[in-house]
Amino acid sequence: MKGNVIVGQSGGPTAVINSSLVGVYKTAKDRGAKKIYGMLHGVQGLLEEKVVDLSEHIRNDLDIELLKRTPSSYLGSCRYKLPNIAEDEETYKKIFAILKKLQIEYFFYIGGNDSMDTIKKLSDYAMIRGIDIRFIGVPKTIDNDLAATDHTPGYGSAAKYISSILKEVIRDGLVYDQKNVTIVEIMGRNAGWLAGAAALARCEDCEGPDMIFLPEISFDIDCFIDRVDKIQKEKESVVIAVSEGIKLPDGRYVCELTDYAQYVDAFGHKLLAGTARFLANKAAKEIGCKTRAIEFSTLQRCASHIVSRVDITEAFQVGGAAVKAAFEGESGKMITLKRLSNDPYQCTTDIYDVHKIANVEKLVPREWINEDGTYVTPDFVNYVRPLIQAELTPIMVDGLPRHLYYKDKI
Amino acid sequence: MKGNVIVGQSGGPTAVINSSLVGVYKTAKDRGAKKIYGMLHGVQGLLEEKVVDLSEHIRNDLDIELLKRTPSSYLGSCRYKLPNIAEDEETYKKIFAILKKLQIEYFFYIGGNDSMDTIKKLSDYAMIRGIDIRFIGVPKTIDNDLAATDHTPGYGSAAKYISSILKEVIRDGLVYDQKNVTIVEIMGRNAGWLAGAAALARCEDCEGPDMIFLPEISFDIDCFIDRVDKIQKEKESVVIAVSEGIKLPDGRYVCELTDYAQYVDAFGHKLLAGTARFLANKAAKEIGCKTRAIEFSTLQRCASHIVSRVDITEAFQVGGAAVKAAFEGESGKMITLKRLSNDPYQCTTDIYDVHKIANVEKLVPREWINEDGTYVTPDFVNYVRPLIQAELTPIMVDGLPRHLYYKDKI
Repeated sequence: MKGNVIVGQSGGPTAVINSSLVGVYKTAKDRGAKKIYGMLHGVQGLLEEKVVDLSEHIRNDLDIELLKRTPSSYLGSCRYKLPNIAEDEETYKKIFAILKKLQIEYFFYIGGNDSMDTIKKLSDYAMIRGIDIRFIGVPKTIDNDLAATDHTPGYGSAAKYISSILKEVIRDGLVYDQKNVTIVEIMGRNAGWLAGAAALARCEDCEGPDMIFLPEISFDIDCFIDRVDKIQKEKESVVIAVSEGIKLPDGRYVCELTDYAQYVDAFGHKLLAGTARFLANKAAKEIGCKTRAIEFSTLQRCASHIVSRVDITEAFQVGGAAVKAAFEGESGKMITLKRLSNDPYQCTTDIYDVHKIANVEKLVPREWINEDGTYVTPDFVNYVRPLIQAELTPIMVDGLPRHLYYKDKI
Repeated sequence: MKGNVIVGQSGGPTAVINSSLVGVYKTAKDRGAKKIYGMLHGVQGLLEEKVVDLSEHIRNDLDIELLKRTPSSYLGSCRYKLPNIAEDEETYKKIFAILKKLQIEYFFYIGGNDSMDTIKKLSDYAMIRGIDIRFIGVPKTIDNDLAATDHTPGYGSAAKYISSILKEVIRDGLVYDQKNVTIVEIMGRNAGWLAGAAALARCEDCEGPDMIFLPEISFDIDCFIDRVDKIQKEKESVVIAVSEGIKLPDGRYVCELTDYAQYVDAFGHKLLAGTARFLANKAAKEIGCKTRAIEFSTLQRCASHIVSRVDITEAFQVGGAAVKAAFEGESGKMITLKRLSNDPYQCTTDIYDVHKIANVEKLVPREWINEDGTYVTPDFVNYVRPLIQAELTPIMVDGLPRHLYYKDKI
């Protein structure tokens, strides 16, 4: 018999974040955990003692299957940044008092960069104070910008969604016998992993996008317009993928040129939107062609109806590996994915010191972007293609994908 | 043996418009048509003699299965409006000369209101001039605004897409423990059939949208803000569906209040966009809550990866019924869908005089919208629910839905 476990979800959701929750839950249960708690809305909820007994909510194997297919963080999420220990010990005392009250021995946090910062601080505090609780981070982010891991669960499904609907949008652009330019806006603040996945749409039955712009490469608007003009002179329907995070040579986001209100979240990140619309309007005005802008929107992080089975399986695995590691005595670590081979694709889990990970953003390597910064290379495509393979069919009820019910039950 | 057949697609595409093309092609072939031509980009392409022999492109049963799953008009589409016969006979002479050259005896046009206008004019001309060609319209539009038919192929799949992703968006809105208002923008110029389908998301595992606004009801912005304010005081996450076509009491579209350029298509329709963004900004400013706008975008008409099997089957059936009717001597008619019963759902095809259909928009009946104009009634939901049932699994190749290849082959 093992002691009590608590698990939370933090940061932006993904289509498979609940598969990791299931991975933690099921593995902890199978390995003899006494109680498995879920914190609602991550550490922020934990501070208010918003905690549930997960076994009351995941009651059987069908619940597990539904939860795997349920988008958005089942337990709710937060963007709460822990203060530095030296500056504000009170918050830590409060958290650890709650953990003690719940007799927690193992603490799992499913999240991205900011969440690994939380794991680092909590494990540091436990070490400093000699408290025997294991803290393990479970990687998750559609952005794929976590260091040390080959890729992050959530990325593959977002890449599959982006490339699948991009294929449909490209076909849609061919409908009329009329010059048209479509600019699609893809998530990604500083890393172009998601925008680059647009290249997957280039395959036997589809030309794919004509250009792809990543935030890693400085974006010159005039040069962009010239390129678009040149392409649209040669072909009828032009489709261009841009990352929401593309930046001007002076470092400002392109979307800062729009009239959007600038919101900033708790971590100081600007909310980005309107890049595609801005560029589409600009192209329409300067080239005189018909343009349209499509934001792929929040569906990139919640389209559970078309997830990658590789991704959902790996999301489960990192959850399970986290439990195994913690039960074996590890702490202050994050589970990583380690690619063994590309063809056939083989991947296993590993473990990495969270101190070396937190707050480091992994960008697309320069050599995976073509010389003029308008597309990704075949190496990039070979990297991402295995991650979108295979499906996990939604459980359809009355014509719609069924999810594990959340509200009021928790 | 029957004579030669020609088929075209016109107006906006749907996710199942190619299933109707397959229905025409396969039925005509099975019933002994000599040659089956496809006109590229509808009547506009026909006028330039852009015509292909379909048997060179649909070569086997796998092609048929792929084409059923291929979004966007396979043959290309147009928004070409035929002139009045009295005003410009030359265009008609040209079209009929081309049809004569191709020895066409049967002419099928898959489209919506504007396309039925084309069928009407061409069949009228043939009758006036005593030309023995049969003209039959095959209904298609995601908007479901065609008269005389219970519903239109394309609507069910759009409704299934809208309600499926809305469920995901609603879950996504619950992620953070923070008041937030999401406004989703759904297609529909004058008819609220698509926006109303948002109500399907209200089911056992989902609360559904909090309000739905259709173009049939005059939209009062101040009243809207008051209602949103009231709801967001009571619950954390609010999701509202609005039709892109909602109109102010003075008759202007709400999106005319935005700074969008106003484009007008060949039929004099204004292009609508920006309604949700406008309302989200307004709500953020006046209520002070966090808001976001999501445009469901062109995916509503091309998301073939999550089509309704009922819809795709009926799309095929109306294509087949059109051929049967034409071969039996009918002309100047449109195939309709006739619902026999709701539970169990049973539907058959019928035939209707196109003169009574063209240019008539079928709106959502007032009694299917609740009294204060903020939701649809259970009658509406009972009407649409059978249309989203069951799936047609995409054929996945290398992780992505495969389509029948188009470009350069045609």
